[in-house]
Amino acid sequence: MTPTRRAVLRGLGAGPVAALGAGAVGIEAASAADVPASFPAPSRRIQLYAVELPDYSNEKRIGYGRTPESASIPGPTIEMLEGECIEIVLHNEVSAETLEALRTDEHTPLGVSLHAHGVRYDQASDGTVHSDSWVAPGESRTYVWYARPANRAKGIVGTAGYWWYHDHVVGTQHGTAGLAAGLFGALIVRRRSDPLPAHTYVTAFGDAMELNARRYPDTDTYDPADPVRSNTSLVANQGERIEFVNIALGSELHTWHLHGHTWADNRTGVLADVPWADDVAVIDNKTIGPGDSFGFQVIAGDMSGPGHWMLHCHLQTHSDMGMVTFFHVHDRQGRPPAGEWPPPHAGHGM
Amino acid sequence: MTPTRRAVLRGLGAGPVAALGAGAVGIEAASAADVPASFPAPSRRIQLYAVELPDYSNEKRIGYGRTPESASIPGPTIEMLEGECIEIVLHNEVSAETLEALRTDEHTPLGVSLHAHGVRYDQASDGTVHSDSWVAPGESRTYVWYARPANRAKGIVGTAGYWWYHDHVVGTQHGTAGLAAGLFGALIVRRRSDPLPAHTYVTAFGDAMELNARRYPDTDTYDPADPVRSNTSLVANQGERIEFVNIALGSELHTWHLHGHTWADNRTGVLADVPWADDVAVIDNKTIGPGDSFGFQVIAGDMSGPGHWMLHCHLQTHSDMGMVTFFHVHDRQGRPPAGEWPPPHAGHGM
Amino acid sequence: MTPTRRAVLRGLGAGPVAALGAGAVGIEAASAADVPASFPAPSRRIQLYAVELPDYSNEKRIGYGRTPESASIPGPTIEMLEGECIEIVLHNEVSAETLEALRTDEHTPLGVSLHAHGVRYDQASDGTVHSDSWVAPGESRTYVWYARPANRAKGIVGTAGYWWYHDHVVGTQHGTAGLAAGLFGALIVRRRSDPLPAHTYVTAFGDAMELNARRYPDTDTYDPADPVRSNTSLVANQGERIEFVNIALGSELHTWHLHGHTWADNRTGVLADVPWADDVAVIDNKTIGPGDSFGFQVIAGDMSGPGHWMLHCHLQTHSDMGMVTFFHVHDRQGRPPAGEWPPPHAGHGM
Repeated sequence: MTPTRRAVLRGLGAGPVAALGAGAVGIEAASAADVPASFPAPSRRIQLYAVELPDYSNEKRIGYGRTPESASIPGPTIEMLEGECIEIVLHNEVSAETLEALRTDEHTPLGVSLHAHGVRYDQASDGTVHSDSWVAPGESRTYVWYARPANRAKGIVGTAGYWWYHDHVVGTQHGTAGLAAGLFGALIVRRRSDPLPAHTYVTAFGDAMELNARRYPDTDTYDPADPVRSNTSLVANQGERIEFVNIALGSELHTWHLHGHTWADNRTGVLADVPWADDVAVIDNKTIGPGDSFGFQVIAGDMSGPGHWMLHCHLQTHSDMGMVTFFHVHDRQGRPPAGEWPPPHAGHGM
Repeated sequence: MTPTRRAVLRGLGAGPVAALGAGAVGIEAASAADVPASFPAPSRRIQLYAVELPDYSNEKRIGYGRTPESASIPGPTIEMLEGECIEIVLHNEVSAETLEALRTDEHTPLGVSLHAHGVRYDQASDGTVHSDSWVAPGESRTYVWYARPANRAKGIVGTAGYWWYHDHVVGTQHGTAGLAAGLFGALIVRRRSDPLPAHTYVTAFGDAMELNARRYPDTDTYDPADPVRSNTSLVANQGERIEFVNIALGSELHTWHLHGHTWADNRTGVLADVPWADDVAVIDNKTIGPGDSFGFQVIAGDMSGPGHWMLHCHLQTHSDMGMVTFFHVHDRQGRPPAGEWPPPHAGHGM
Repeated sequence: MTPTRRAVLRGLGAGPVAALGAGAVGIEAASAADVPASFPAPSRRIQLYAVELPDYSNEKRIGYGRTPESASIPGPTIEMLEGECIEIVLHNEVSAETLEALRTDEHTPLGVSLHAHGVRYDQASDGTVHSDSWVAPGESRTYVWYARPANRAKGIVGTAGYWWYHDHVVGTQHGTAGLAAGLFGALIVRRRSDPLPAHTYVTAFGDAMELNARRYPDTDTYDPADPVRSNTSLVANQGERIEFVNIALGSELHTWHLHGHTWADNRTGVLADVPWADDVAVIDNKTIGPGDSFGFQVIAGDMSGPGHWMLHCHLQTHSDMGMVTFFHVHDRQGRPPAGEWPPPHAGHGM
């Protein structure tokens, strides 16, 4: 399968994009400045803004966005094709006062950064204090990521996978306050032969029983009368190929469980068409510790049918406290399941 | 390998079964009522009773059983063949008073339910509050499970695996009190080509350092003079193929460790006869979080010989507090290891 | 690839070895006494001493060493080839007074032991109290380990893998105090076709945010002017094949993360040269619970280049408290990265 324009476009953000090229929101021709010699020329340059989200909650929240206005928690999902090199320009619009208030280690400088999992980067794109690759308030910095392909003959692994990116300097030299505030997002690297989903949803399990920095019922803004698709409204029609990218952050153990669906515990969740694929474990519950990320594709409601399928941490104390949302599967014609939502009991006391 | 009568019979419970058909204890011809159209006709109907176990311990305990008299913790192991659809009729014999005493969320109704991992079911068999698929005291409900086969050409995973079933409504909308009380059991789905073990043992690691809702020495009722095989008396003769199904539940991390034996970290624990199977990790210790289950087959005492092989959580605080039992391997003639059991030191202070 | 003399020699310890045979430090011709009949004749006998390390820290520390003088935490890495059987003679030089002070379970006898993961051993080499396979102060005991090969036709797994060994009797019948004091080390079993690394580093994540029983900056004794290679000074030249063996012990969850490098989540971390290897997940962060061990080989600085690459637990509270070290990658000519080390900020407040 050759890469499609759709695959590239999806990397640009949630909104419609008028043109693929310099000048479109969030994309520009890439410069080759400071790109490691072993990397190919960058194919794209993405703008990323770290901004305060004052209306988000009573707690101090910070998000990444393609524009300052669209910053969110999780931040925008970044998609790459294996073999691609990209630039990301991080603009720090968080005030020094906010960063100072979040700081618990006096030796940590005041700034934000961008640290990626999975892709290749050199020290200048590490996003850490010791490598001096962070961004002071009001300043910008260009990070370069390379999704290097596998070289099986040499035993070298590729980059295709479900990864994430995050701050590494807010609060402490490990970005502990930055992560808690919301500075993280999903990073998907696709192999060119991978199937493309109809929609991708991101779930990040953090401390304090937070799912995408919210607790149920705030995790689920689904309205059957107006079923918008977003990371707080997981919707699909039966039969659609849906992708989940799941992240664990903070300092606690979690287990990621989805009702009514299963997946292979491999790179994609999808079974390869070879006899020995039968050996791979199939799961519907996965233990994840901080820093882990995984993803998979499933056919929505395949055999299980339409319905409100619970998605929760299987630690009982976590799910009871609201680490819960729902995957709302409509029928093949897009009609929501019968009955009111939320039902009388389910909206309370989770 | 074709499915054997033995494989089907084992699904019926621990005791001997006189006849395979309607009328035998715990089995009846299945009705086709309320079976999803995409499922095949059910091949069996299993009765399952949720009952209080007043003599079990000072704590409130509830178990599942094929009959009210045989309820146990874990509940009866349910076996299916991949491709099979079955019905399970759950009878709630737990009193409203007991359910009320266990309830910590006032919005949760008083009932018990059956939620399965791994198999396919529709919303009516989800076993949750929001789907209204639970059972009030004194009532019954039929759940339908389908062990759908893999379709490699379409990338769709199969169901063969080591799963579990549990309550999802006692105490809270996640069944937190039901799980703690004992409402869980193992669910094995076999591929028709999978080898059959001589015996299957189930270990469930829960909170409060409980292994099958007990702590050492209560976890190990083995008596060399009368070596009954049960989930509290793990016995084998050297050379026998033994299967372990292992479940994690509650809110804590565990690691499952068995002395003297190793297994492949794949679907079965057994190495496939293909060269690339050499890439699979072999383990003797596995991290499991709540909701996880896994299983494997080993040859008892293979190379390690007869002996009392410790099985424990490798979290030191957990094993020290009694999250321990033993796998007692007799010699090939069935003779127990020499020496008294338990030895003077080992029975104390675990 | 045939086994090389180097592979065998590396098993002997960190120091130079004058001769491979009886009389060399830490190696002798093996006796065949008490070797299980199903094992091949032992090829080597290794001496291992358990000794107190009074100068290590204010806490009571005990380590294993090939000689009493070279005892360390972790203990010496033991390497075996799959198919090999070896003897290890454990000498307990820890005083009864120290063992008494560490004991929290009065039923546990005063001794030390050797319990191995992965390899085959009989009850006499289990290293547990109930099997009476421990060593009193001033005494010695010979343990026998067999790295049995895989038998794919029979579905039997091999032993090649990244394992560990540890005490199982100090303090409690699970060796809780022995592990906390430092009685553990890495055990590598190589398949004969496995590539050999230029260097192997061991990291053990324990309780109290300890990495190899230390916290940053004590975890990293690297000096660019004198870059000694050790388990507290992780150094490589760009392009070198480096092996990491990683252990979790104690009672806490950890996640093992390395910046700038990725590996396959399989037995070796290296991608097999078969098309279906594309299904294996590639990771740079791995959840590990107590008792787990894993390892992998990477090409140092491959694409990411020279630099100081952070290695840390990704639990934020753990990394903030010092569960951190660095992998220092020099350029291909062995020159350290430019700039002072540690930099002004990075040495403080981790």
